[in-house]
Amino acid sequence: MNNEELMDLLNKVRNGEVSTEEAGEQIKRLNFDDLGFAKIDHHRAVRVGVPEVIYCENKALEHIEGIVKNMMERTDENILATRASREAFEHIRKIAPQAEYHELARIVTVRRKEIHQVPGTILIVTAGSADIAVAEEAAITAEMLGNPVERCYDVGVAGLNRLLARLDVIRRANVVIAVAGMEGALASVIGGLIDKPLIAVPTSVGYGSSFHGLSALLTMLNSCASGVGVVNIDNGFGAAYLANSINRVNLNQQEK
Amino acid sequence: MNNEELMDLLNKVRNGEVSTEEAGEQIKRLNFDDLGFAKIDHHRAVRVGVPEVIYCENKALEHIEGIVKNMMERTDENILATRASREAFEHIRKIAPQAEYHELARIVTVRRKEIHQVPGTILIVTAGSADIAVAEEAAITAEMLGNPVERCYDVGVAGLNRLLARLDVIRRANVVIAVAGMEGALASVIGGLIDKPLIAVPTSVGYGSSFHGLSALLTMLNSCASGVGVVNIDNGFGAAYLANSINRVNLNQQEK
Amino acid sequence: MNNEELMDLLNKVRNGEVSTEEAGEQIKRLNFDDLGFAKIDHHRAVRVGVPEVIYCENKALEHIEGIVKNMMERTDENILATRASREAFEHIRKIAPQAEYHELARIVTVRRKEIHQVPGTILIVTAGSADIAVAEEAAITAEMLGNPVERCYDVGVAGLNRLLARLDVIRRANVVIAVAGMEGALASVIGGLIDKPLIAVPTSVGYGSSFHGLSALLTMLNSCASGVGVVNIDNGFGAAYLANSINRVNLNQQEK
Amino acid sequence: MNNEELMDLLNKVRNGEVSTEEAGEQIKRLNFDDLGFAKIDHHRAVRVGVPEVIYCENKALEHIEGIVKNMMERTDENILATRASREAFEHIRKIAPQAEYHELARIVTVRRKEIHQVPGTILIVTAGSADIAVAEEAAITAEMLGNPVERCYDVGVAGLNRLLARLDVIRRANVVIAVAGMEGALASVIGGLIDKPLIAVPTSVGYGSSFHGLSALLTMLNSCASGVGVVNIDNGFGAAYLANSINRVNLNQQEK
Amino acid sequence: MNNEELMDLLNKVRNGEVSTEEAGEQIKRLNFDDLGFAKIDHHRAVRVGVPEVIYCENKALEHIEGIVKNMMERTDENILATRASREAFEHIRKIAPQAEYHELARIVTVRRKEIHQVPGTILIVTAGSADIAVAEEAAITAEMLGNPVERCYDVGVAGLNRLLARLDVIRRANVVIAVAGMEGALASVIGGLIDKPLIAVPTSVGYGSSFHGLSALLTMLNSCASGVGVVNIDNGFGAAYLANSINRVNLNQQEK
Amino acid sequence: MNNEELMDLLNKVRNGEVSTEEAGEQIKRLNFDDLGFAKIDHHRAVRVGVPEVIYCENKALEHIEGIVKNMMERTDENILATRASREAFEHIRKIAPQAEYHELARIVTVRRKEIHQVPGTILIVTAGSADIAVAEEAAITAEMLGNPVERCYDVGVAGLNRLLARLDVIRRANVVIAVAGMEGALASVIGGLIDKPLIAVPTSVGYGSSFHGLSALLTMLNSCASGVGVVNIDNGFGAAYLANSINRVNLNQQEK
Amino acid sequence: MNNEELMDLLNKVRNGEVSTEEAGEQIKRLNFDDLGFAKIDHHRAVRVGVPEVIYCENKALEHIEGIVKNMMERTDENILATRASREAFEHIRKIAPQAEYHELARIVTVRRKEIHQVPGTILIVTAGSADIAVAEEAAITAEMLGNPVERCYDVGVAGLNRLLARLDVIRRANVVIAVAGMEGALASVIGGLIDKPLIAVPTSVGYGSSFHGLSALLTMLNSCASGVGVVNIDNGFGAAYLANSINRVNLNQQEK
Amino acid sequence: MNNEELMDLLNKVRNGEVSTEEAGEQIKRLNFDDLGFAKIDHHRAVRVGVPEVIYCENKALEHIEGIVKNMMERTDENILATRASREAFEHIRKIAPQAEYHELARIVTVRRKEIHQVPGTILIVTAGSADIAVAEEAAITAEMLGNPVERCYDVGVAGLNRLLARLDVIRRANVVIAVAGMEGALASVIGGLIDKPLIAVPTSVGYGSSFHGLSALLTMLNSCASGVGVVNIDNGFGAAYLANSINRVNLNQQEK
Repeated sequence: MNNEELMDLLNKVRNGEVSTEEAGEQIKRLNFDDLGFAKIDHHRAVRVGVPEVIYCENKALEHIEGIVKNMMERTDENILATRASREAFEHIRKIAPQAEYHELARIVTVRRKEIHQVPGTILIVTAGSADIAVAEEAAITAEMLGNPVERCYDVGVAGLNRLLARLDVIRRANVVIAVAGMEGALASVIGGLIDKPLIAVPTSVGYGSSFHGLSALLTMLNSCASGVGVVNIDNGFGAAYLANSINRVNLNQQEK
Repeated sequence: MNNEELMDLLNKVRNGEVSTEEAGEQIKRLNFDDLGFAKIDHHRAVRVGVPEVIYCENKALEHIEGIVKNMMERTDENILATRASREAFEHIRKIAPQAEYHELARIVTVRRKEIHQVPGTILIVTAGSADIAVAEEAAITAEMLGNPVERCYDVGVAGLNRLLARLDVIRRANVVIAVAGMEGALASVIGGLIDKPLIAVPTSVGYGSSFHGLSALLTMLNSCASGVGVVNIDNGFGAAYLANSINRVNLNQQEK
Repeated sequence: MNNEELMDLLNKVRNGEVSTEEAGEQIKRLNFDDLGFAKIDHHRAVRVGVPEVIYCENKALEHIEGIVKNMMERTDENILATRASREAFEHIRKIAPQAEYHELARIVTVRRKEIHQVPGTILIVTAGSADIAVAEEAAITAEMLGNPVERCYDVGVAGLNRLLARLDVIRRANVVIAVAGMEGALASVIGGLIDKPLIAVPTSVGYGSSFHGLSALLTMLNSCASGVGVVNIDNGFGAAYLANSINRVNLNQQEK
Repeated sequence: MNNEELMDLLNKVRNGEVSTEEAGEQIKRLNFDDLGFAKIDHHRAVRVGVPEVIYCENKALEHIEGIVKNMMERTDENILATRASREAFEHIRKIAPQAEYHELARIVTVRRKEIHQVPGTILIVTAGSADIAVAEEAAITAEMLGNPVERCYDVGVAGLNRLLARLDVIRRANVVIAVAGMEGALASVIGGLIDKPLIAVPTSVGYGSSFHGLSALLTMLNSCASGVGVVNIDNGFGAAYLANSINRVNLNQQEK
Repeated sequence: MNNEELMDLLNKVRNGEVSTEEAGEQIKRLNFDDLGFAKIDHHRAVRVGVPEVIYCENKALEHIEGIVKNMMERTDENILATRASREAFEHIRKIAPQAEYHELARIVTVRRKEIHQVPGTILIVTAGSADIAVAEEAAITAEMLGNPVERCYDVGVAGLNRLLARLDVIRRANVVIAVAGMEGALASVIGGLIDKPLIAVPTSVGYGSSFHGLSALLTMLNSCASGVGVVNIDNGFGAAYLANSINRVNLNQQEK
Repeated sequence: MNNEELMDLLNKVRNGEVSTEEAGEQIKRLNFDDLGFAKIDHHRAVRVGVPEVIYCENKALEHIEGIVKNMMERTDENILATRASREAFEHIRKIAPQAEYHELARIVTVRRKEIHQVPGTILIVTAGSADIAVAEEAAITAEMLGNPVERCYDVGVAGLNRLLARLDVIRRANVVIAVAGMEGALASVIGGLIDKPLIAVPTSVGYGSSFHGLSALLTMLNSCASGVGVVNIDNGFGAAYLANSINRVNLNQQEK
Repeated sequence: MNNEELMDLLNKVRNGEVSTEEAGEQIKRLNFDDLGFAKIDHHRAVRVGVPEVIYCENKALEHIEGIVKNMMERTDENILATRASREAFEHIRKIAPQAEYHELARIVTVRRKEIHQVPGTILIVTAGSADIAVAEEAAITAEMLGNPVERCYDVGVAGLNRLLARLDVIRRANVVIAVAGMEGALASVIGGLIDKPLIAVPTSVGYGSSFHGLSALLTMLNSCASGVGVVNIDNGFGAAYLANSINRVNLNQQEK
Repeated sequence: MNNEELMDLLNKVRNGEVSTEEAGEQIKRLNFDDLGFAKIDHHRAVRVGVPEVIYCENKALEHIEGIVKNMMERTDENILATRASREAFEHIRKIAPQAEYHELARIVTVRRKEIHQVPGTILIVTAGSADIAVAEEAAITAEMLGNPVERCYDVGVAGLNRLLARLDVIRRANVVIAVAGMEGALASVIGGLIDKPLIAVPTSVGYGSSFHGLSALLTMLNSCASGVGVVNIDNGFGAAYLANSINRVNLNQQEK
């Protein structure tokens, strides 16, 4: 029930078209959604081109298919399915023929309307080539959310010179996402070189005492570079989501 | 050696004023600092009103005094000393009489020139009153970096209604910093209500299986709310530093 | 040796039919079971409709089959087999044709006599849809133990409004079981909204620093909401068992 | 705004006494507090004899004094201050002369009106004498919440016979709280003997690989006795709070 | 009720002096203590020279004094107070003038009657001199329990030759207790050299990644030498207690 | 070079049959094996009936086959192959037709000569039926080492009465091995009831916060029952090995 | 741009062949690689016989094939592919027919030119036979880097005499690599016997509380033998790499 | 018994001056020390200028005094006392007036004879100024062992340019020790820049999720730079000890 509907109801009460009892019931049934603090979900939907998101891990293929079907019928939004296997993609494609599969990122995208672009760029950097899967999850997500993305992969400590050689690119970005496993030192190195918001994504790449990403996670949380925001191990999606919200800061409403 | 000096040198080579050998030596001696990627520190100093920062923990009082003295003589920047005891403050005040002590935040500030303000607001929220010390470290830091700050303290789960009642304030902010110990659920709750960059600071408040902040840290890293950037336990300074860099995104150069 | 048998023995001593030595021996051989403190197991069996329970994980199919066979022959109680695969179900059904398989809950139930119902309701709430398997283990167990169950699934932080919209349902319940993985904040949120016994079940849903449920477990143990009882990760059965014993508090003996 | 007030407003709209615009504004201003889900805090206050609670750890003495003063002036409720040092007690006594100090429990109670008693008993059992401090925190809390309490201390595994000898007492209780450090086996032993709700409190008593209570905590979470609700290490207060809510289940409204 | 009393009762039943009803009641009231399985404590007391044990850590001085007083009055057994400070010793000496303080071991012993010696020797070995405190706790305990003790201290890996030089001593012992902190390798080395029961005591000696004894504990649990029994970190008392029970195996009853 | 050979050599030096130089060389070449401290391995082999042991985990089938072949040719000792798959058994049987497979214990035994029995009994107790595999590893090992074994399985806390009912059996044993997963409380309960050497084996049975046996391990290390020797998780072999060495204490040399 | 090219450029400036503007641009484009600090990679390539290294774990077979192809075309260096499956080997062999597969080490080597040998020997010691895979990864790597390697396998604590018997071999080595799982005591034992640089490699060999190599790792980090350098669990390659750089210390430049 | 003494003995046997029995006894009493493998300790003492080492932590002042006294009387070697408080220094100075106290390093040195220098340099680098204490422990130790030391402090990621500016110094060193707390990324950065043996020392500098050095430790163990040898947290002494043994590799015997 939005504002107009509420005024309409009250007018009907005034006119005697609706009894006070009935109006009282309707108002008490007021879904919190209508009262402002719960408009969140719809608020998201109203923005131009924001996709619906499905986290596919552990979901049955039929279940995923059902959700996509529902989305295809109910809205005209783009769709982003993360942690999707190729089989999940096949199931989605049956419902949404325009679906594309991003193999490395394990993401399925269904583009149904144009994505409104923000001006600033999100730069995604990885330490090694094994971190690229997580980086691509971030990259595709950021693009689907309307952000220009630059990739700068495999520039870990051993390739420090390559990283330094691209400092201009790094400095042009609005937000940087650093993706690294093993010891995760990349975040600290980049944090020391730039003055932009930096999001660090530890990955589970490594073995032995990397403890499935714990080593990189702790490194990033303890970074001597001030002001690094860390997300969960392998959480490329979350990093892109945060980068997107950062990338929209200080844009005026119409652009947003 | 900046661009002009390089051109000057090359012109001297052309004119025979400098031998190619000597020019080659000078160019090879090029300090990395001169080549751009190492201008970072100075880059920071050039921005209007950015303070010099001293991390006081474990530093001897004389050491702190020496650093402040050096800063007072060498620059005219503001000074921010974090994790400072009252004794540290007394030592700093001897050198910098305008020093102020923020007891809860354990911060000493020395304001020597006006801080250039950015327009957007940083909101700092805490779950409990025991988290306020960390929140104030963030608040004072953010203010010293030129950000308007709003505080919304003691609105944890038990005070959910108080939080909801202030949704307008929360939504007006450009960036939100959520500070919470114990189980740290506050970050997830706020993350579900807003669509702005959210930085989560776990605190060491709690006992037993809170394991000195580990519980809150894990909660925040695993938040079901997408896009929360987490910093180290009790790291109010780092959260503010990140929030400040976010709050400057998309501002044009002169404002920056 | 029950009370009658003891009196019978003592009478025989009195009558000289049994020597004091022999009676002494018999009394000393008194199995603890007969003395009261060990009647526990039977005490459980005497209550109306309490099922026999089999924990199937790691048990060979023939083993499970054997246990069920023995139960079918020895008692007329209902049977509850937890963590049962579909294959386990097939084996059980051969012995007990009335067996039903609850796939999500991975439970097999064999209803052989009516379950005596208690009046109060147990409400089971989950944060996400991935937590439903654990929730259903709790739900089916609670029902087999004679409790009316209400389900309120997928109402985590992102769906806070849905949770709030069902507060009446929540408040009508006698006991609430909150099931959540990832950061497990749901327990704290519900704990702040109700004044009923609350049991929290962390689940292993999540990845990276959720550390297979550790994150949710710590969150729940450190909940700022007072008085949350936590069970093991993924232990829906245990939560229901505790909820059942709570739901019977203050009922008079005959109802019990 | 409660139901009557809403109906009153709607009637005024019908009668034209209030304009639809004004009514719309009033309805939109509906504080969440008025819609039910936020009545929680007051709901607690309405119950007879429920104390106000202050967690004193890490609070400045003046701060505690201020809170107590405020409570003394604003309400006539009883007061329960947990984790209170003797000095905290001295400060509280200045404001509330009737304050009593429970040294072992580290609790200060201020009884200002009679506590309404529930009929059922809460039994508190400890493994060793070192666990008594935590047990007393639970005991005093439970009593202040209106529950008859029985204590059965120092009956760990080495004193199993003492525990067994008191089985009648144990079975008479409505709820049992088992408090144990070191290996925490007490909870499992009691859980195997009774059929009542059992709350387990791990304590930090022990050394070496007890890891400050972690050992007892894991033991209790993995108890082979079904249906044990575990609270945080050393959290006697939380255990009592949960026990109190359990002890009120199925009591009719007026008793509650 | 012991055997004689039971026979006496049964005889009275036979003679009609006691009714069967009354006898039945008395038998049912049979305290478990009387039935054998709970005679444990007394069983211990009956053995010649076994001391009463007080664990002093965290106990108030008056409390310790009270316990000793009670022991002095009630029994004529020797007394062993572990983890006792010098102050605790002073308090004990007031009650028991014959008390001796073993400073390194932090043990107070009160010898009131001769300790019956078993023939076999317990050998206690330490890796470093910092482990001697724990070793002495074991040594004094073992002696008070009636075991000849040999000490072989400071023979860690760096002093392997000293250890090897004393192989005859090591091989003469009935049981060996290996006490080591840091990396705890001593247990494995000794385990590879002897064929006697070996008890390993990790100590909290070390720093950094020794994690307060965790390193030594894990080393000992994973020893490639078969058949090492490990006790808690710094638990010299427990090691001696186990060694004592091992040292009595296969001795005939009268010696025991 | 044994004693006789040394004396022989020295006599030859005396007689001039061997030069001092040559004798010096021979003495310096003295293999440590000859000096006593390295006779360990052979020392084991000399004892009657001690089997050769093969740990099969991670060994290639051909590798195992080769080792067995070598043993069959080189010695006439019994063979014990632990953690052996059925396939490993098939390979061993090809070489040693008398091999037997103990499926639950995952042990292959090859009995080639009679095992000399010690008089005392080793009792093996398990908490649940899932712990039986580890218990059987201990049982078969203990038997192969010449110890009479009694089994008392599935007598955890829920079956405390069954355990108590068998106290006589427990007390007759020379050594007790308690095998338990989940919370591992069994060791403490038995430790409180007996006065014999007790070896505790934590198992990886359980889920969630049992952390693959960590919970049971910590429980056992922190047992409030004095003098429990703990071995690695699932290490039935090590427990039996230790129990065997304990069971031989105080037997005179010829029996040994 | 190397030194000659720079001088050439400056000469052209002097001669007017190149404008100062163009020269300035070229100098500013100076890749850091040219300025010395980034010559690392090439520096490695210049040394005689140093192989190119590919870490195959998690790399797609086509990816590995592509890298090898590129190496075969671009350089004439030897190639070392670690953690390579047999399938990876088959793919590499298609491109580089001279490839050899070291099955135990899981390494593929492609020898295309002679490896320049350093004079000193690297000794690799293992505790058990299960550690040999990791040891062979170290051995093959060390050999490919030009080091003479000696192997001394399966000389753990149980075979201490075998180790001692080979002390001469151990003392002749320039560097020792100790490889051990389970409790990892080998490093301490060797560290106590030699005075050469010692590198310790914990392996994931073990079960239960070895926690996948954590036990051996902590043991080695806490070694009471001074000066042991530890690498990651199972990191034979890293140990050899470090040993190689140690083995080249103090050799004069031409040998290097 | 050295070689000469053995020959002397054998000659006496030949000459009949010593009976074969007596010679046999003497030879069997041969302390292992004499047989080579145990000459380690003396071997150390024979080298020129190697100090005796005392680890003072947890040692009583009188104890330290005693050890120093013994060393002063027994040998003429230099003395190195680590982890020494100022009080310890005062006690040592009473015995050895030439003692010097290195406050930051917490080391006392007593130089009694000239230290023989090796030619190569050990470079010690720290990330922050808080790591200097550990670095100085390494520096003083390395110097006392005869190594030229260069210090390069406070060159963490934020000062990367300072580090790069000193690459020549870094490359001149024979061995590098990198000392860093917090996230410990320094080791990886240096490891990527040099080709010399690199020893990494994690420090306990940091707070929150640095977990007292665990974060830096894991970072260093997982370094993507190949071939980093890691020592225990804060173990500057061990790092220097290892660096010293590396710095002597390939030096010919007389220099050693």
